[in-house]
Amino acid sequence: MAHSDATARFAALSFFDAALGFWLDLSAMALDAEQLEQLEPKMAKAFDEMKQLEAGAIANADEERMVGHYWLRAPERAPSDDVRKVIEPAIDQVLDLAAQLRKTGALHAVMVGIGGSSLGPQLVHEALRSADDSMRLHFLDNTDPAGIDRLVAELGAELAKTVTVVVSKSGGTKETRNSMLEMRRVYERAGLEFGPNAVAITQEGSKLDAYAREHGFMARLPMWDWVGGRSSVTSAVGLLPAALQGVDIKSFLAGAAEMDALTRVARLADNPAALLAAAWYLAGEGKGRKAMVVLPYKDCLALIARYLQQLVMESLGKREDRAGQVVQQGITVYGNKGSTDQHAYVQQLLDGPDDFFITFIEVLQARVGEQIEVEPGVTSGDYLFGFLQGTRRALAERGRQSLTISLERVDAKRIGALIALYERAVGLYASLINVNAYHQPAVESGKRAAAQVLALQGKVIEALSDEARSAQQIASSIGSQDALTVLFILRQLAANGRAAAFSEAGKPYPDTRFSVV
Amino acid sequence: MAHSDATARFAALSFFDAALGFWLDLSAMALDAEQLEQLEPKMAKAFDEMKQLEAGAIANADEERMVGHYWLRAPERAPSDDVRKVIEPAIDQVLDLAAQLRKTGALHAVMVGIGGSSLGPQLVHEALRSADDSMRLHFLDNTDPAGIDRLVAELGAELAKTVTVVVSKSGGTKETRNSMLEMRRVYERAGLEFGPNAVAITQEGSKLDAYAREHGFMARLPMWDWVGGRSSVTSAVGLLPAALQGVDIKSFLAGAAEMDALTRVARLADNPAALLAAAWYLAGEGKGRKAMVVLPYKDCLALIARYLQQLVMESLGKREDRAGQVVQQGITVYGNKGSTDQHAYVQQLLDGPDDFFITFIEVLQARVGEQIEVEPGVTSGDYLFGFLQGTRRALAERGRQSLTISLERVDAKRIGALIALYERAVGLYASLINVNAYHQPAVESGKRAAAQVLALQGKVIEALSDEARSAQQIASSIGSQDALTVLFILRQLAANGRAAAFSEAGKPYPDTRFSVV
Repeated sequence: MAHSDATARFAALSFFDAALGFWLDLSAMALDAEQLEQLEPKMAKAFDEMKQLEAGAIANADEERMVGHYWLRAPERAPSDDVRKVIEPAIDQVLDLAAQLRKTGALHAVMVGIGGSSLGPQLVHEALRSADDSMRLHFLDNTDPAGIDRLVAELGAELAKTVTVVVSKSGGTKETRNSMLEMRRVYERAGLEFGPNAVAITQEGSKLDAYAREHGFMARLPMWDWVGGRSSVTSAVGLLPAALQGVDIKSFLAGAAEMDALTRVARLADNPAALLAAAWYLAGEGKGRKAMVVLPYKDCLALIARYLQQLVMESLGKREDRAGQVVQQGITVYGNKGSTDQHAYVQQLLDGPDDFFITFIEVLQARVGEQIEVEPGVTSGDYLFGFLQGTRRALAERGRQSLTISLERVDAKRIGALIALYERAVGLYASLINVNAYHQPAVESGKRAAAQVLALQGKVIEALSDEARSAQQIASSIGSQDALTVLFILRQLAANGRAAAFSEAGKPYPDTRFSVV
Repeated sequence: MAHSDATARFAALSFFDAALGFWLDLSAMALDAEQLEQLEPKMAKAFDEMKQLEAGAIANADEERMVGHYWLRAPERAPSDDVRKVIEPAIDQVLDLAAQLRKTGALHAVMVGIGGSSLGPQLVHEALRSADDSMRLHFLDNTDPAGIDRLVAELGAELAKTVTVVVSKSGGTKETRNSMLEMRRVYERAGLEFGPNAVAITQEGSKLDAYAREHGFMARLPMWDWVGGRSSVTSAVGLLPAALQGVDIKSFLAGAAEMDALTRVARLADNPAALLAAAWYLAGEGKGRKAMVVLPYKDCLALIARYLQQLVMESLGKREDRAGQVVQQGITVYGNKGSTDQHAYVQQLLDGPDDFFITFIEVLQARVGEQIEVEPGVTSGDYLFGFLQGTRRALAERGRQSLTISLERVDAKRIGALIALYERAVGLYASLINVNAYHQPAVESGKRAAAQVLALQGKVIEALSDEARSAQQIASSIGSQDALTVLFILRQLAANGRAAAFSEAGKPYPDTRFSVV
């Protein structure tokens, strides 16, 4: 029996792997086999670059480093013995530490880290956590003292059964250092030692590594310069929290390795990561002209959009290409979950500007255990499925594009595979648009500017006196041209009881005068 | 002493209210006082429409209903006794119910609702929850059976001390009904009655209202046709969960009322909501050409971007304007929190396409209680402040626009004020671009398409037989032209043990044959 046109299109524009229980369907994107074929030469170059990267080329030229996250799940592919021999011992160290902590009855792990040291672990945690987990994970991924206070209050007396894991590749990330110092204070005030309850994951010789040695941390786990932050989830950064929570990390790594094998195939039509990258390229004309809206129809995958926001936008959002041309590249990523978001912004996706494509992520297994009917013959899961299919269709009828990833179920193996799929797709897409996916040059500018603000704050605090003066006067007194930032500093100091503020009713805020408290 | 240029610009382009401890600063947007002045006539019309709306005009013409969320915090402004007299009794009912539940020792509330019936309550919960809360809230905002199972497992034996609150204005939302039926089953299997542990918030006479009467729900709280879902957080929809958690809901309402008073002023320069709407309008040329990136520098406000995604995108994302012209309007909203996101997608914001403006939300009070120094004279909160200011500056240096809202602190009053600010800004902006902010016409199309898929699924299940047949054959046997959807249905049934699938290695997935199990 011949296939219908739609089915034939699906067959031509989808990828299926039976062993993984994985489908990628591009048939609802505005592309065809011919366009994919035209991309072949560009993609051939991308495959070649990827091959060199996996063979140990200096893929991050800025930082002069190799990019080796694929070796983490296939150590035999590492380009040297030095690299090869450190990978498996680190996995064993993770497993040993998790076993040891389970034995000592630890109940909580506070994961201190930010960006690449947190988003991957958060995704894995949310996807795979269950009420039966041996330990509960908590994430401090900021330098917000109120956020820290709230977590500490929640831990309460169970702080005594809490391990704090500090994650920073460079060891110099201020947010992470601050949260670590705050946690140390919390332990000490509770009469507990910090070091014996702390673990560091960092590069050997980093500031954090030195701190951990000095303070007798329970364990130090390695990071390596050849693993980038946003692709570190299959290193100890992601493996330790996963193991603490009770995830089968070998299966997680195996899933990533299986996807790596599928995405190493140097033929566009047979490589799901290449198909994904090609779909992004064609949808956004190689310029990121359409946002990527990520809609997993599964509660436990709700963090995938935030994870991909980092992986995609930090990797691809670049001012210059590798030839130094100004290109201002990027792809905007946002989303939460379905069918929830159908009751939020999907109204705009259907009716508003056609400036996006959706990535549906479908999970075929509705639940483990008995299905419950909410109508004769119909389950809650059928509705979830129906809403995904219905929205996909409604979007298509209005000319909006979507692609769909379907997973047999959510488990450690598929989460590993999904992560590996996107890591590779981002790498290939970066080659297509000729940008370096493995650095983040702009991030420093915000940090530098912040350091200047803090230096200025120091001067402002020193300059405060008994005399109430305006921000302008105080700025002049310390030789600063930036009276507005001085005003913002004084406002913040006043709100925290570190300066006194005197405003007159009806006068503009910049006329406020400030003194010591 | 004369102000610096930057300070003078801040004074001219910012709004300050001392009583609320609230600042809105547009000085880092690419706009000037002249452009604002040119918007005055358009804004005057918007003020006039808002005045009519508040006076009880039929503001949602599609559904022929008034739009009265502003009356919820100022009942005296309601246009009729019928409306006026129901508002305060409902607040009393919320307070009584919360007191009653506290007395009976309830520990958990499962909030069942989606979209407008969930996002506002989730925002308030996350902003104001603390370890001391009398009850813990949980949100079921989907029809994902695995999500329900996970929550139920977490509740464990404490299900006996759990109240389930079902929220649906229309009473007909399928996701909500499904989660309610699932929860009912859970109670009954645990030997508990559902009705006496359940509360409904819905319009009188709705399906949910009838169900609640029939099953003896503990309480029924009102919704009214003059309150839209996405602006229902100051009705019982938001007040009940807030009260259960221990929030001072009178203060929450008072904060909203205070902001309402400030945003009722019919002069652009003196009205923070009008300034906000004007900034959006000028940034996106009245066409939403720049995305709104929302970055609260405070952990507890991390849900504000998701809340605004709904409020803004569902209100403004419209195909036709009020004159029936095709306009495809909208503003894309995304974001999470700072400084966390500086380690994620801010790289793209700094280096990539200039297709956005940032909304910084600053909270001046760093923490309650003692500050801890992480360096001499510097606290964690100083770093949070420094990163916000530094990122704002780094963006400005690259020509990227931002606006900043500063709040003295996070409490019930300011959260009420913040919500009211955005409700009004969205309403005014909708007037500026001449769209109806109060309907969501496209949302039905996805629901209709989903119903068709579920109807087709029913036929597919009936058609399954002992003979293994392809999706194409089964589609033909039931007279369906949509063999691809039939294939997707069969794939999902097979993954859930409701059909048997037979694939041959190497053959394309559409050749798979299916039979009864």
